[in-house]
Amino acid sequence: MTFIPAGATIGVLGGGQLGRMLCGAAAKLGFDTAIYAPETDSPASRVASHSTVGAYEDLDALRRWAETCDVITYEFENVPTASITALVDAGHIVRPGAKSLEIAQDRWVEKSFLKECGIGTADFVAINQSSDLFEALQGMGGHGLLKTRRDGYDGKGQIRLSVSDSAEEAFASLGRRPCILESLVPFGCEISVLVARAPDGSTQTFDVPRNEHEDGILARSVVPTGLAVEVEFAAIDAAHKLAAELDHVGVLALECFVLEDGTVLANEFAPRVHNSGHWTVEACQVSQFEQHILAVAGWPLHTNYRLSDAEMGNLIGSDVDDLARLVPPDASLTLYGKREVRPGRKMGHWVRVGASL
Amino acid sequence: MTFIPAGATIGVLGGGQLGRMLCGAAAKLGFDTAIYAPETDSPASRVASHSTVGAYEDLDALRRWAETCDVITYEFENVPTASITALVDAGHIVRPGAKSLEIAQDRWVEKSFLKECGIGTADFVAINQSSDLFEALQGMGGHGLLKTRRDGYDGKGQIRLSVSDSAEEAFASLGRRPCILESLVPFGCEISVLVARAPDGSTQTFDVPRNEHEDGILARSVVPTGLAVEVEFAAIDAAHKLAAELDHVGVLALECFVLEDGTVLANEFAPRVHNSGHWTVEACQVSQFEQHILAVAGWPLHTNYRLSDAEMGNLIGSDVDDLARLVPPDASLTLYGKREVRPGRKMGHWVRVGASL
Repeated sequence: MTFIPAGATIGVLGGGQLGRMLCGAAAKLGFDTAIYAPETDSPASRVASHSTVGAYEDLDALRRWAETCDVITYEFENVPTASITALVDAGHIVRPGAKSLEIAQDRWVEKSFLKECGIGTADFVAINQSSDLFEALQGMGGHGLLKTRRDGYDGKGQIRLSVSDSAEEAFASLGRRPCILESLVPFGCEISVLVARAPDGSTQTFDVPRNEHEDGILARSVVPTGLAVEVEFAAIDAAHKLAAELDHVGVLALECFVLEDGTVLANEFAPRVHNSGHWTVEACQVSQFEQHILAVAGWPLHTNYRLSDAEMGNLIGSDVDDLARLVPPDASLTLYGKREVRPGRKMGHWVRVGASL
Repeated sequence: MTFIPAGATIGVLGGGQLGRMLCGAAAKLGFDTAIYAPETDSPASRVASHSTVGAYEDLDALRRWAETCDVITYEFENVPTASITALVDAGHIVRPGAKSLEIAQDRWVEKSFLKECGIGTADFVAINQSSDLFEALQGMGGHGLLKTRRDGYDGKGQIRLSVSDSAEEAFASLGRRPCILESLVPFGCEISVLVARAPDGSTQTFDVPRNEHEDGILARSVVPTGLAVEVEFAAIDAAHKLAAELDHVGVLALECFVLEDGTVLANEFAPRVHNSGHWTVEACQVSQFEQHILAVAGWPLHTNYRLSDAEMGNLIGSDVDDLARLVPPDASLTLYGKREVRPGRKMGHWVRVGASL
């Protein structure tokens, strides 16, 4: 329950746009910031008080950096848990802790944990070799989604599969790594729950956005969802259970499928601030980034009520070369300061709020 | 009308909280930032991409710094105009330009300019020696406010005076510097207009806040004012005239008195973002800081409609040691990262928004 006073330094592992926006929120609350990232000139490094370039596996460099921080958080879930554990063992405060990270890093562990928490998911089964696939697919009615257990994001590391496809080819295309096969869910829409949890267990939950993906990448989030409140409550309830079972500190995002009959199935969670919560900056009294910093610093969470309806659109790859056409004239723009445009790379987003919706 | 592309560097003269918040807004829009300030470890330096410590009078250092910037702005109005002129002469883009700064730096020049623009003010007269005071005070009904023409802020450098006081003592207490005597205005309330103006002359105006001062320092801003719309329109009209006559680029704040009968008299203006506009961060679609950066970068201004009512309270001096008592539980907090608490020093502010008001 350590309390981190204003003026202290919040360390952030990761140098992307989430780190950049976390630094902004930390600065608003009077903190200094220290980024640790493997890339030079990362987006977050250019808004942080201090910046260190180093590999996540370089425990010596990490420990030296950690000495300059009063508390440490992370902006993405693929930092090695061994690195987090080493920092904790050296006496540093890391929020959220290694548990949230460890579980989120492996899709099979993640889904199994959700199940243990009593949270519904699509059917899933571990696939350790291609010969596991046939039987597993048959058990799911002949179709499924094969995903690597680790390192997938934005639709990477997954492939849609039916029982007539070559199991061997599919498994090889994902690098013959440990996989998970998930049943296809005939969902009506996708939503996400953004919940902030303080070290004392108190929570604040944002209004639930409805999310649309294109090519596996989030394209658009809209709030309110237009769904029945019972549906949103079921998702919120699942997120609260999950955050409590993880003893999570900070923001956690639970992505869910909503079936046509209103059933909510958890898909995956991110132990951090999330793309589907960017609209909270413009539309809410306090943003997801600010709630995360408050939680990480051990301060009381604020209320975060929503002041208006909101719509967020992502700017992917070369979208940033066409802002005049793609960004609505009444939108608020955020660009991530990435030097290089790459296909599928998240370059920025826009948010529309208010009566115009 | 130069357009500054995202990824470019915005230079900010001044390292205080306004510079800090300008850096945050610039980062949101994908810019790098470079602070130039005389203090080491300034609040803005800790959120900027680059930071230079130097005197505002050191033209060589200023020019070297300016070479690293694509456009330059300032966070306060007491940068020497000679320094701004030197940068402009060296080919750098400075927005707002020297004119807004030069006029805002001298109270007599400022009031005279307002008068030339057809904007009503309290009566005023230049005081060059103590012997000017008796007659001037008599002309104002025996009472007046004596202020130094330069370098006054937050109620510093001013003294309330009546005809029976010692003119010599009063003049001496302000350092025998050129002064201005202003008539006392029996005002009902104070308001301010925050207008953003782009290089092409287009403007966006924020809703008008009502301001309360304590000991000459802004204590509280509230929006809406509750005043008749004609009153607000008169103030907005004055601010628009002023911004146009200055050919101002960026945000400009015009502080006005509102008399009991609804007459609006301009008091002073700041050629920059302003303390009375901090609530725009939480309550508006786009904040005063973001509008300033958009204008300075030559981008189209956004709409900046207000999503909720708002109330801002300043945290002055040791207020920051008593946050739990002074900050409403449903407020959003901003702290400026100042290392040292000093009496009268602005340390942070809180903003309440939404239905709870």
